[in-house]
Amino acid sequence: MKLYYTPGTVSLAAHIALEMSGISYQAVAIDFSKAEQKGAQFLAINPLGRVPALITDEGVITEVIAILNYVSANTVDRTCLLAVSDQQSSFFKAQVDAFNSFLSSTVHVGHAHMWRSERWATRADSKADMAKKATQNMQEYFELIEQKLFAGPWVHGEQFSNSDILLFVITRWLQGDGVDPTQFEKVYSHYTKMLEIPEVSHLVNGLHAKKG
Amino acid sequence: MKLYYTPGTVSLAAHIALEMSGISYQAVAIDFSKAEQKGAQFLAINPLGRVPALITDEGVITEVIAILNYVSANTVDRTCLLAVSDQQSSFFKAQVDAFNSFLSSTVHVGHAHMWRSERWATRADSKADMAKKATQNMQEYFELIEQKLFAGPWVHGEQFSNSDILLFVITRWLQGDGVDPTQFEKVYSHYTKMLEIPEVSHLVNGLHAKKG
Repeated sequence: MKLYYTPGTVSLAAHIALEMSGISYQAVAIDFSKAEQKGAQFLAINPLGRVPALITDEGVITEVIAILNYVSANTVDRTCLLAVSDQQSSFFKAQVDAFNSFLSSTVHVGHAHMWRSERWATRADSKADMAKKATQNMQEYFELIEQKLFAGPWVHGEQFSNSDILLFVITRWLQGDGVDPTQFEKVYSHYTKMLEIPEVSHLVNGLHAKKG
Repeated sequence: MKLYYTPGTVSLAAHIALEMSGISYQAVAIDFSKAEQKGAQFLAINPLGRVPALITDEGVITEVIAILNYVSANTVDRTCLLAVSDQQSSFFKAQVDAFNSFLSSTVHVGHAHMWRSERWATRADSKADMAKKATQNMQEYFELIEQKLFAGPWVHGEQFSNSDILLFVITRWLQGDGVDPTQFEKVYSHYTKMLEIPEVSHLVNGLHAKKG
């Protein structure tokens, strides 16, 4: 398989899943500073011009949620945290789908209003207005996660899932969004717990290291 | 099971899936004009205050993508279009996940900038700016679906899936967003094909009928 990724983006979640899964893959960086994601070569892979994108023997998979579920389903090592057990009910899967859908379509979108507001507005003063509201939204979304959605020790309780990977990645964005992550006790403890997974720290300190 | 829904929202997709599945359920309308979605009673079901929400014997499922996958997985009638066949590969499921994630986190979000811009901005002039851009975004998203993502006769080819239900529901919003749906030949033909499914026309002309 071949993963297209860019440091600082949600593609880190797909990268962590692949690294944990034991599946053999190649990682290809897409450089946003050179607008490679909007180049003809990459648009042929993902017409939306976004990372992550995963090339498999069967075809291309886009969207982080889809890649996470695909990688989990194809993890054969039963001792891997990521392995989907046969005992996992359709209800457990639905909880993972629901949490990750909330993260993608509400929380990730909320964050994007700080950094990619040109997607939804054209005027400079609109963008400033949206950035201010983005900080407030991220604060509220994480209060909801902390108080209502997080079971512990993992997102959905004793069973690790894709939700843990995606929450970890988005928690990393809070400081840049103007929100102090340490105020959320459960979420921040989960964040440090995730960093103890060797494959996670390997990527966070390596290919996905923050610049500067 | 008990489905909480509101006409005019994406909850129509969950409602169609349940209706097609043959699963026994009760439908409960949540009246946005009375702000019932933000009332204590409903927030206890979905802390985010959004529809759809599905109460099952095992607990509550929120987020339309999660409900669609859960209902499909629990459809026992093998002759139902919605039934997930054992032959469906993890790659096919990933295509459904990817398409529905794009619809939820990009297209639905694009539409919401026309009608719910208070989620992301506070100033009246920002909201006007966002509404204008929303029309342009919806046009571009549907060009992408028409030209790149839609296989035909169903979204992913010969096999019907959850993607068909969600695409149908969002296509219904185009006219209100200032985009002519009939310009998209494949998507519009799919829309009329969906209306031929009895459970779909039953809901669209009944509980989810447009007002006025």
